[in-house]
Parts: sequence; structure tokens; C-alpha cells
Amino acid sequence: MLAVLTGGTGGAKLIQGLSLETDPAELVIVCNTGDDFVFHGLHISPDLDTTTYTLAGFADTERGWGIKGDTFATLEWIGKYGGESWFKVGDRDLATHLTRTRLLNEGLTLTQATEKIRKALGVRSGILPMSDDKVETRIRTPAGEISFQEYFVKERWSSEVSGVAYAGVAKSRAVPGVVEAIRKARAVIVCPSNPVTSIGPILAVPGVRQALEETPARVIGVSPIIQGAAVTGPADKLMAAMGMEASSFGVAKAYADFLDTFVIAPEDSSQRNRIEALGVETVATAIRMNSLDDKKRSAREVLALV
Amino acid sequence: MLAVLTGGTGGAKLIQGLSLETDPAELVIVCNTGDDFVFHGLHISPDLDTTTYTLAGFADTERGWGIKGDTFATLEWIGKYGGESWFKVGDRDLATHLTRTRLLNEGLTLTQATEKIRKALGVRSGILPMSDDKVETRIRTPAGEISFQEYFVKERWSSEVSGVAYAGVAKSRAVPGVVEAIRKARAVIVCPSNPVTSIGPILAVPGVRQALEETPARVIGVSPIIQGAAVTGPADKLMAAMGMEASSFGVAKAYADFLDTFVIAPEDSSQRNRIEALGVETVATAIRMNSLDDKKRSAREVLALV
Repeated sequence: MLAVLTGGTGGAKLIQGLSLETDPAELVIVCNTGDDFVFHGLHISPDLDTTTYTLAGFADTERGWGIKGDTFATLEWIGKYGGESWFKVGDRDLATHLTRTRLLNEGLTLTQATEKIRKALGVRSGILPMSDDKVETRIRTPAGEISFQEYFVKERWSSEVSGVAYAGVAKSRAVPGVVEAIRKARAVIVCPSNPVTSIGPILAVPGVRQALEETPARVIGVSPIIQGAAVTGPADKLMAAMGMEASSFGVAKAYADFLDTFVIAPEDSSQRNRIEALGVETVATAIRMNSLDDKKRSAREVLALV
Repeated sequence: MLAVLTGGTGGAKLIQGLSLETDPAELVIVCNTGDDFVFHGLHISPDLDTTTYTLAGFADTERGWGIKGDTFATLEWIGKYGGESWFKVGDRDLATHLTRTRLLNEGLTLTQATEKIRKALGVRSGILPMSDDKVETRIRTPAGEISFQEYFVKERWSSEVSGVAYAGVAKSRAVPGVVEAIRKARAVIVCPSNPVTSIGPILAVPGVRQALEETPARVIGVSPIIQGAAVTGPADKLMAAMGMEASSFGVAKAYADFLDTFVIAPEDSSQRNRIEALGVETVATAIRMNSLDDKKRSAREVLALV
């Protein structure tokens, strides 16, 4: 079994590749839930959804979110009522949020709701939220604190960021399967996701980081940064805001206590010595994933390290 | 101002006609909310919706419910998750339920939520729920008690009915505007709606029946029954189950204490003497409303009595 830690877009690319290059039933995906939020009364888990849709084979991989071919009739009509429509919920996607919200209201945990959803969609990989407890990634901006989705989707990461907090994380408990997966895996793969707002919240859940440090499995990371710039999203901006070096080295340094191997882009070969000085082995190979072939190739590179 | 008491389908036909044959701003529509129910966590008010969509001009008048041209992507996808999909919620329609539920959760009354929705859709007529309190029409069947929507939509009124109750009605309060509209109207129009499950709950709200009895306005009813059969829906079956005569006379008798004039079909002319013996004036004219012309003609007939 391979344990995979991921956020949304960037991680989903590698996960798609992994699911095609190995038996999907071998994968246990641990998803960030710090981006979860309530929209029109519905519990939305963007990273769980992106992961589930990706593994079910109907993710919209061009847009990077939602369901391929989805329509937006409900959202357009919500706009007529003056309701907020900045988060682009498709009609099919909405069924997931309605179902999850109903299941949670019926008393199921987020883990149990996620399990029902992935089974209904025929997904064979395990999908686990990092925690069943509420952890909320909060972005501090000059105008005040906002949720990650407000920062990421509503403001399209235009705000200046002075800090990031994972509200509730200290009291949160990891889903038992998460720690178990990390400890028992053949290898742990840390996806090329935002180290501050995707992987960061997972690592902050009590017990997860320790499990990563202690697992006998090889922990393999893939850099979300190439030549100082995030491949997708605001990872570089957020790293800089957190006082981290926005580079492959900066990511490796944040993970150095548990990372065995870090896969970086050939363009970042100049950083290999600095990263290896952290005690982290490096592999330089093409990790930009634009096409399906890119995703499969990157997945093969990672699987070769397992 | 004309006060109009209505349920869903049958009443909507007359309301469409009225809105085209008089100034819609003159109409105050009082809707049954005994059919309201919660579906996937959303507060659905079928009769308020049908009325609002009808007045907004985009009701699906062929089907008799929902929005014309609506799609059903969310509901189909909910089916994938094994969720209940017997109540046909369209994608655009869903936006109404999400908005209403959000507004109610924000602390608005059903009256206030209804007002926001009808204004957003450009409806100039007043639309009032009979009560802001929960009143639930319960249908007793051999298999147990079920909600009206379960009986009407899920079971397509196939169950044998042994009784009907309006749970919560004794403690409910009429929306203040309802009693005021009835008392101050130039005329009150009781739509050709189900007397047991559409008009019945409105009449059972404390104060409404008294206002109808006391209003100086002429109270004009239109029969939902022609030759002993409901024009649409299970009115005849439910009347029989309640020990009422399933006929125009039976409806007139149920309304006799407040009804001044009852409009019946020419086919029911033989019942005129019996109805007039109740102290109710009768008018026999074509009231079957299949086409838009039918609806307009029926509306003109009613308006001529005002």
C-alpha cells in the first residue's frame, strides 16, 4: 500500500498518473481538509472532491476542479437571487455537496461520508480526510483574516498575505487510518501540493508529522516549485509570506525531518547540493505535468523510487 | 386588492389567468404550506414555488410544477449516490430551495424569504405563506402516516387514505398579512385547489376561517371537481376518505360558512339547487383550464363577479 498526501490541483495531477501506473486499490490518499468551507449551507471539501473525481475518472483536468462537462444552472440561478456565486459549484458537483452535508447531518463522520461517496463513484483507492474535526486554514491579509477559499477563489490570491493559521488544528485528531497508512505503507508520497495550505495543514494535525518521521517507509516528495515559481497556484507567494524560501530547497527544508527523497525539476539541479545537505536525497527529472503523458511519466518516476 | 387562496397545480392555472387579466400588483396570493417538507436538508415549499414561478412567467405549465426548461443534473447525480430522487427538483428550482434554506437559517421568516425570492424574480403580486410556523399535512394510510409529498409524489396517490391531519396547525399563527388581506380585499378568490390538502390547511390556521366569515368582501370559489372527479390530483379520493361528498356540492358544503359565490362547471348544473340551498350563489361556466385561453377566460369569469 502506498500512502499519498495531497491537496487539490497539483496533487491531483500526480494522483491521476499514479492511478494509471499502479493498481489504484494500492493507494490510500490522505487529503487536506483545511480548505473545507460552508457555502449556501453545504459542506464543501474541495480537495476530497478533486481527489475523488480524479480517481473516478471524470475530473475536469483542464480546469483543475469540478466534474468534466458539468453545467452551472443552479449557480446561475442563485445569482438571480443575489446569492454568492464566486465558488463555482457545478450541478453534478452540487449533488456531492448535498449528499455529504446530508450524511454529516445524519451523524456520519467526514471519513464515513467520504467513503460512501467514493464507493458510489466506483473509486477503488482509499480516500481519507486528514481529520474529522474542523480545521480551517485562515489567511491573514491587511483587510483582515479570510478563509482559504475566499483568498484562493474569491480574491484569486491577489491579497497581500501576512500570515497563515490552521484554526482548530491543535485540538484536532488525525483520522486513525491516516497515521496507520503512513506507518504501514510501502512508501509515502507527498504530492506537489502547496506546502503552506495543502500539505501544511495535514502535517499540523497532531500525530501525522511524528508518523512521517517514524515510518520505516521511504517518504518521497515531489516539488510544487520549479525555478522559484509555483507550477500552479500561490504556493510561492504563500511560502514567501511565511518567511520560507520560495524554492525547491524551501519545500525540502520544510519537510526535511521526514523526507527521504525529493523529486525536483532538472531546472532546479543547482539546488541539489543544498537539499542533500539537509539529509534529503534528490532526483532531478521532468515533473511539470501538463499532459496525461506527463502525469503518467511523473508517476512512473516516483513509483521507480518506491 | 384581491386576496387569492391557493394550493399548487389547479390554483396556479387560475392565478396565471388572473395575472394576465388584471393588474398583478392587485393580487395577494395566500399559499398553502402544509405540503412543505425537507428534502436533502433543503426547505421545499411546493405551493409557494409553483405560485412564484407562475407569476414570474417561467413555470412549466405543461408539467404543472417546476421551471420551464429546467435540467435535472444534480438530481440525477444524487441518484448515483443512492440518495432519494423521487421529488423532481430541477437545477434552477434547486437554487430557490438553497436560497430559501439559507435565508431561513439566517433567521428570516418564511414570509420574509418568500418576499425576497418573489422580488428577485420580478413578481409584482404579493405572495404569502399561510403561516410562518410549521404545519404538516399528514396522510394516514394502512401502512402508517406519511407526508403529503410522500403520498402525492412518491406514491402517486396510490395509497388508501383513512385520514388527513394538519400537524401543528392548532398552535400555528396566520401570517398577519393573510388575515389583513382577507379582511380588506375587494374580493377573496378561493382557487380550484384540493379542499382537503390545499385549501383545508389554510382554513385550519387559527383566525383565517373567521376572517373569511367576517370579511365584507365577496368570497368567490372555483370548483376543483367536475362531475365528481378532480380536474387534477387526488382531491376526489381525499374528499371521499374524509367522508365528504366528492362533488362540487361537497366542496361548496365545506366552504358554505364563508362562501358567497361558487363557480362550477356547466356539467354540474344539476347541483346548483343543492349548493344554493347552502346559501351559496352559483355560477355555471366552463372552468376546465387546459389552454392559456381557458385560464384567461376562467379568470375573466371570476373577475366579472368581483
